[in-house]
Amino acid sequence: MKQKRCRHCDEPPVISMRQHKLALCEAHFVAWVHEQTLRSIERYHMFEQDDRVLVAVSGGKDSLALWNILLSLGYQAEGLYLDLGIDGGAGYSDQSHRRILEFQQAFWPDVTLHLLNLKDTYGESLPEVAKRTKRGLHKPCSTCGLIKRHEMNRMARELGYTVLATGHNLDDEVAVLLGNTLRWELECLARQSPVLPADSLGFARKVKPLCRLYEREMAAYALVSGINYIYDECPFSTGATSLYHKQLLNEMERQRPGTKLNFYVDFLRAKKHGRFQSERTKELQHCERCRQPTTSAGICAFCRLWEK
Amino acid sequence: MKQKRCRHCDEPPVISMRQHKLALCEAHFVAWVHEQTLRSIERYHMFEQDDRVLVAVSGGKDSLALWNILLSLGYQAEGLYLDLGIDGGAGYSDQSHRRILEFQQAFWPDVTLHLLNLKDTYGESLPEVAKRTKRGLHKPCSTCGLIKRHEMNRMARELGYTVLATGHNLDDEVAVLLGNTLRWELECLARQSPVLPADSLGFARKVKPLCRLYEREMAAYALVSGINYIYDECPFSTGATSLYHKQLLNEMERQRPGTKLNFYVDFLRAKKHGRFQSERTKELQHCERCRQPTTSAGICAFCRLWEK
Repeated sequence: MKQKRCRHCDEPPVISMRQHKLALCEAHFVAWVHEQTLRSIERYHMFEQDDRVLVAVSGGKDSLALWNILLSLGYQAEGLYLDLGIDGGAGYSDQSHRRILEFQQAFWPDVTLHLLNLKDTYGESLPEVAKRTKRGLHKPCSTCGLIKRHEMNRMARELGYTVLATGHNLDDEVAVLLGNTLRWELECLARQSPVLPADSLGFARKVKPLCRLYEREMAAYALVSGINYIYDECPFSTGATSLYHKQLLNEMERQRPGTKLNFYVDFLRAKKHGRFQSERTKELQHCERCRQPTTSAGICAFCRLWEK
Repeated sequence: MKQKRCRHCDEPPVISMRQHKLALCEAHFVAWVHEQTLRSIERYHMFEQDDRVLVAVSGGKDSLALWNILLSLGYQAEGLYLDLGIDGGAGYSDQSHRRILEFQQAFWPDVTLHLLNLKDTYGESLPEVAKRTKRGLHKPCSTCGLIKRHEMNRMARELGYTVLATGHNLDDEVAVLLGNTLRWELECLARQSPVLPADSLGFARKVKPLCRLYEREMAAYALVSGINYIYDECPFSTGATSLYHKQLLNEMERQRPGTKLNFYVDFLRAKKHGRFQSERTKELQHCERCRQPTTSAGICAFCRLWEK
């Protein structure tokens, strides 16, 4: 579908979205992305205007766009950058940090950005701790996930935020969904949600306001908004299974526009009406060291990272 | 993986199965297919030696192979061919019938083959009834499915068989599974199984003994066994969604050998441990005309086909 005009005015369209049969000019596209995000926030009861939201920013298009959208919509949204000390030959973490600071200074100079440097706090960067603990065969990805989950939750709670928001877009969500589905991981399917409620043991409320927006839409949004983000994927992500699933889903989307959105939305609907849980569910308890919730007995996997 | 020798002897392999890391010569491959089928029959408690099994044969490789395997394994297996009167410019139904008769005469001349001709029995062929009732936009596929399900069940029950067996292979099963999963059809997922038990309302027990064998393995089995089958797909199947899903799954299998088998086996395991049903389930009752079970009130969809 190629339209010569924006659906709402005479301007030329900046994007054509086949799955929505919709073409929009710059201004109407930006408004549409804001409206879609607001709709997801309300539809899934993510948070209210008086919530204090901590946005996990990585320097990529999605998290910077999310921060910008939430602030534009009038929410109280502050940023958190977790510097993992990844170099990859091009100073990946430093470059990411620079993009975030540039964005903040140009767009929202009065809004707080928190910084957490892993090496300064725990004595080792992600590549260093992954290497020493020999987790994950030359790939620190599982250690990275563990650290991000732990530290972002900790920061949100310690700094008094009620909600932790991440920039996962639809493509991220359906790639995970496809992976979990191909292996029929019922526990993971039961947990995958646009919103995970806080719990009394110490998990912050977690939300993904961009979960219904395509990656392609987010790239276009960053471009037309003038957000200068880090284009490179993390140097460790090459060959990741999630990238393989994204390729597959892109091919499916090309052949049948709307495949990704329908797969995700139908999944959420099925989850609402049916049941996915397997009968085994793990009990949570407090880690004896950091007091965060964990399924491990005694000390959690994060705290075990630092035992030498 | 290319092996120069069969795993079990010095013969050259006739097939290399990457997903099983297994290469076999003709004789060992035939034995392996028989053993795999037997294992599925036993694993899923499909039937016993004293069951009378009716095999739905279409003239394609899978159903002829299935019939041959069950008879070779010593089961009481008789055949049923349902002649739907499909021409497609090449006498599709007639050709299919011919292949079945040739197979029977060459391999098992003393075993019974039942024939049911739709036009002789109900006055119209499948294309004729589909056209008159305007079901399914120039494609009689949904009518075909309805007729086959109804008539095969009826014949199995009327002729005193305890089990109805179909030649669905792994590729068939995972294509349906992927389709149901992409739309998260919980009711369909709950029903998809290698074995559906008989029920008191009049459904025959239904089994799919080839459900763990790849399409490629079945084609090789037919070839090395000298079974001459109808190569053409049904003339109405072009553009079918199931063929699109098969293509996708072939691509996934090519990139990650074992994808299809794992997807299917993990699904069955998840179903065993978890729950897929949505909360709504339809009540079954007897059709007022044919007395077979139906979810419709009054007269079933099959009997409604013939109301003029």
